Amino acid sequence: MPATPTPHDTVNAAQSITRATIEAAASRIALHIIETPLIESPRLNDKLGIRLLVKAECLQHTGSFKLRGASNAVWSLDDKVTDVVAFSSGNHAQGVARAAASRGLQATIVMPKDSPAGKIEGTKAYGASVVLYDRYTESREEIGADIAAKTKAHLIKPYDDARVIAGQGTVGLEIAAQAAAKQAKIDAILCCCGGGGLIAGMSIAASDQIPGVKIWSAEPEFYDDTLRSLTSGEIQTADINQPSICDAIVTPQPGQLTFPINKQLLSGGAVITDRDALQAIATAFKHLKIVIEPGGAAALAAVLTGQYPQGASTVVAVASGGNIDKQMFQRALDEGPLF
Amino acid sequence: MPATPTPHDTVNAAQSITRATIEAAASRIALHIIETPLIESPRLNDKLGIRLLVKAECLQHTGSFKLRGASNAVWSLDDKVTDVVAFSSGNHAQGVARAAASRGLQATIVMPKDSPAGKIEGTKAYGASVVLYDRYTESREEIGADIAAKTKAHLIKPYDDARVIAGQGTVGLEIAAQAAAKQAKIDAILCCCGGGGLIAGMSIAASDQIPGVKIWSAEPEFYDDTLRSLTSGEIQTADINQPSICDAIVTPQPGQLTFPINKQLLSGGAVITDRDALQAIATAFKHLKIVIEPGGAAALAAVLTGQYPQGASTVVAVASGGNIDKQMFQRALDEGPLF
Repeated sequence: MPATPTPHDTVNAAQSITRATIEAAASRIALHIIETPLIESPRLNDKLGIRLLVKAECLQHTGSFKLRGASNAVWSLDDKVTDVVAFSSGNHAQGVARAAASRGLQATIVMPKDSPAGKIEGTKAYGASVVLYDRYTESREEIGADIAAKTKAHLIKPYDDARVIAGQGTVGLEIAAQAAAKQAKIDAILCCCGGGGLIAGMSIAASDQIPGVKIWSAEPEFYDDTLRSLTSGEIQTADINQPSICDAIVTPQPGQLTFPINKQLLSGGAVITDRDALQAIATAFKHLKIVIEPGGAAALAAVLTGQYPQGASTVVAVASGGNIDKQMFQRALDEGPLF
Repeated sequence: MPATPTPHDTVNAAQSITRATIEAAASRIALHIIETPLIESPRLNDKLGIRLLVKAECLQHTGSFKLRGASNAVWSLDDKVTDVVAFSSGNHAQGVARAAASRGLQATIVMPKDSPAGKIEGTKAYGASVVLYDRYTESREEIGADIAAKTKAHLIKPYDDARVIAGQGTVGLEIAAQAAAKQAKIDAILCCCGGGGLIAGMSIAASDQIPGVKIWSAEPEFYDDTLRSLTSGEIQTADINQPSICDAIVTPQPGQLTFPINKQLLSGGAVITDRDALQAIATAFKHLKIVIEPGGAAALAAVLTGQYPQGASTVVAVASGGNIDKQMFQRALDEGPLF
């Protein structure tokens, strides 16, 4: 796959991801992932005045949904591939490292040197080689492409890859099936959005299976590039020099493959502050008993601050990851829950 | 039901709990509980050298398994009952409060005044009246029986009640089905043990569905009354003046109904310290992304400290609850993970 797809390639690749490819991904990765639960708290529901279902993808192996897309990509590879390379702030890193190990491949992961220590430790623990870079002055895409060229390793991009998007889409299939089992009619789904791979894949599956569902992105302050792009109709960029604790989703702009999908399937978006994320983490600790990281808390933070489609009475928030260091978690507990 | 069953009553009640009554309980409570996931961490498995599956019952509504037994008891009641009463350190309290509210009944809960603040707050939040008592100088059984006599409320005991034990037993049905779906052959199950209701019900279901499974209790230091009772063959008591952070499972002795069951179905037990529990909480934070309380961490702590049946390669630890205050969780994070 070329480093920058042409517009024609992009349209083809985006259109190639369908319910059928997502179902194929689900079969391919079934033995490598767990079906994460859709949890709720009656007390929190009472306080919010809606039924809030949380897709606890933080419980996924490697601590985030990223294992789904990484596993679908790795297990779609030709048998001749021996090495893979990826660039990631930490969750895709661990997903690719674990997926590669499950197939006996060697992984090299390019990570920002200011990634949470636990994410770097985790990536190494899954057997990958880690190359650190400065995310303010260096391009991870260039470093990843260089390593791929030198080592003949196959590059697995974090979101602009149809196999990865289809893998993440399995979250949407599960949400639809789990809600049906609870006899819950979902009005809206909120999902965090960095490059947009999770929300794109999830939206393809969910909008196919849940007629009329409204899907919103949830992004950190300063990194609301997808919402601004949805509003303007064209890809907008974020100023990556702005600070955010939501390390998992601070990407410079929407993806070339993901944005056309999200433009078609999303109806709006929420923007949350660092404080909103911390309070969401503390609320999840108190009421839901799950550990979530700042970026993984974005959708929950949006719902807790009243940012969801008007009139929705049953809302899903995807809690995408739980790879948070002790210091940040303690900061969230000190901030305290919103409810 | 009399306050103290006669030996004849006890044998009959214990024998009345079968796979069929547990399956009936599962149907009765299905709409009031969630099926909690059986989660694992590949990294933790690598470190332990066994496959450890954790039944994350902390994710249950009200934050513990107690909702299962409470719901089975409440929804088994005659239509004429309007009030229920229970005594509990906090998890059965919240379970009964929530179950009563779901059927429109008024609940009065007798709680030790040194219960974690969050448990008292939660019990009130579910609409129950709370009566506090001193667990070192007063008998909760007597207070509960007095209230029951005065208000005509129906007493729902925390473990010496066949309906409650059958409700908790649904955890065992789920473990067996979920392990089968993962193609995992379970060698052993570790489960925390206070009065023994959860482990008794779970053991009836699990030993029926998983041939050859070994089941061990996990108890806090000083409160290993079930293990000592199993060893001696007779009910032994604990010194309730000893300190323990495992508030959910510091009971004075095994139950009259639960012990005959546990004596028949358990093959051993583990004893864990406060420090083991804190390290297990931190390990669950790091690797499993769940929030567990000290008592709910006992089984995990046992496995992490190598206390499980020799030769077992696939082990389940039941994480029974997650109702922990912020201060205690911070203490666990400061203690740090064992792996």
